[in-house]
Amino acid sequence: MNQRVTIQEVAPRDGLQIEQRFVPTSEKIALIDALSQTGVAKIETTSFTSPKAIPNLSDASEVMAGITRHEQVGYVALVPNERGAERALAAGTDELNLVMSASDSHGLANLRMTPWQSLERFPAILELARGHEVFINASISTAFGCPFDGEVPASRVLEIISQLTAMGIRGVSLCDTTGMANPAQVRALCEHVLARWPELALTLHVHNTRGMGLANALSAWQAGVTRFDAALGGLGGCPFAPGASGNVCTEDLVHMFEEMGIDTGVDLDALLAVSQTLPELVGHDVPGQVVKAGRSNRRYPLPESASAR
Amino acid sequence: MNQRVTIQEVAPRDGLQIEQRFVPTSEKIALIDALSQTGVAKIETTSFTSPKAIPNLSDASEVMAGITRHEQVGYVALVPNERGAERALAAGTDELNLVMSASDSHGLANLRMTPWQSLERFPAILELARGHEVFINASISTAFGCPFDGEVPASRVLEIISQLTAMGIRGVSLCDTTGMANPAQVRALCEHVLARWPELALTLHVHNTRGMGLANALSAWQAGVTRFDAALGGLGGCPFAPGASGNVCTEDLVHMFEEMGIDTGVDLDALLAVSQTLPELVGHDVPGQVVKAGRSNRRYPLPESASAR
Repeated sequence: MNQRVTIQEVAPRDGLQIEQRFVPTSEKIALIDALSQTGVAKIETTSFTSPKAIPNLSDASEVMAGITRHEQVGYVALVPNERGAERALAAGTDELNLVMSASDSHGLANLRMTPWQSLERFPAILELARGHEVFINASISTAFGCPFDGEVPASRVLEIISQLTAMGIRGVSLCDTTGMANPAQVRALCEHVLARWPELALTLHVHNTRGMGLANALSAWQAGVTRFDAALGGLGGCPFAPGASGNVCTEDLVHMFEEMGIDTGVDLDALLAVSQTLPELVGHDVPGQVVKAGRSNRRYPLPESASAR
Repeated sequence: MNQRVTIQEVAPRDGLQIEQRFVPTSEKIALIDALSQTGVAKIETTSFTSPKAIPNLSDASEVMAGITRHEQVGYVALVPNERGAERALAAGTDELNLVMSASDSHGLANLRMTPWQSLERFPAILELARGHEVFINASISTAFGCPFDGEVPASRVLEIISQLTAMGIRGVSLCDTTGMANPAQVRALCEHVLARWPELALTLHVHNTRGMGLANALSAWQAGVTRFDAALGGLGGCPFAPGASGNVCTEDLVHMFEEMGIDTGVDLDALLAVSQTLPELVGHDVPGQVVKAGRSNRRYPLPESASAR
């Protein structure tokens, strides 16, 4: 199995978008600049969406203009439509992350489009991107289940990927938007996709809503997936599950892989140092565990009672 | 792989022993009686230890006498020494769970015995149990790492199991006492143990200290393990990692297995109903996720914005 994976940090977008507090632009930039020094392969920096839809990310252009770019890091922006793509391209984004849902109801609730309507819109965005040095990824939300429609058949996800690749899109993220996926399902779908499209840059994007985030990532890795989205501190969340955690936590994911002997390219201590700044940034405790417990290799002094053998 | 696993609930012992609040005996009994109706295979009911060492479980005999036994459930008690074994046998316990550490320092800190000293004491306990209808299990703490000594070589754990089986002990729990194990390590050790002792009743006991609880359980299942300890709500914890979570959470583990199509024998809805009583019982929020988010099959009404297609 692959002994090298890449980590794509999504906290600045998927994490901050649902926070109660608007994180000031300068603090967003400081967070992204700190993350750029940790060895993550990509940072989902912001979303070029309507400020009315996501007020927390209304400063997308300012953030993209303000960050200090690290040459080893790809700066990704989520793009819901042509207008967003134009703004993202103008800001010099390295990668456009197009977004759609696998399920009708989630697509309509989130984007006012069914999957098939989204797929009809994508060629216009690809046309805008032509001539720019920009990678195009498509994220498929609710790929493992929809909180409204329930089960999402794998055949539907495969049909969507088939249409995306036919358009020339070379990167796809399978997103477990509300944490419904289980390890058996993740393994089966990822194996199927990689067998059918071996050249596809396939990313797993999971939420830890029901505690299965790391187990699902492990299962995807066993299926051959090497690209993982994760959010520092486990930021993010599901608006339907108050109190449940958000995205799979970057430092916990990196810690698991590194403990398994799998190289993530990430400096875990540097990442943990950035994670420690989060509670102040967002104004509340965050779900990540390793930042609280320390790495597995942490040692404690022997209690007095034990030293007197 | 095995499509049937058994769940051994440890919250009444491993969970309650570290709580700030002494849970009154009647409330312990009510909790255990409720758990007895959920389909768990065993319940670690209490610990027959010195009341000075673990004041929270000083009512061990009263609890064992007060519960209503379900014929399908095995009632287990942790037993640190001969005195504890005598009390547990007098209380009609179904299974004695002998406890030792794989590492010298943890053994000395927790039991004032090295692993080898513990192994010398066990025959006297087995002698006491002779003639009683009681199953003997041995739990090996720090089997995947020690918070004081660091790495615990697999060879040491194998030597301990070798001595335990030579004494006639037929059940062994590999315990990741402070949540240091990773999925690769769990898989390798469990595969090794099951290959060498195929008849052994092997249990995995993991803590979720660094978020890897479910991933480690998944990995053990892939290695062929079918017995899992878990604590309702994810109760329990590591005294060295304040803020980090405790044992792997029973309802989250059952949920993962059931979603994967693996039969646990547990009625998850019944288990979730018991879990909902925990915050009041212990006086604080607990780490379990599924009780907050609902099962993966939970459906939400479509938002107004989406219904107008």
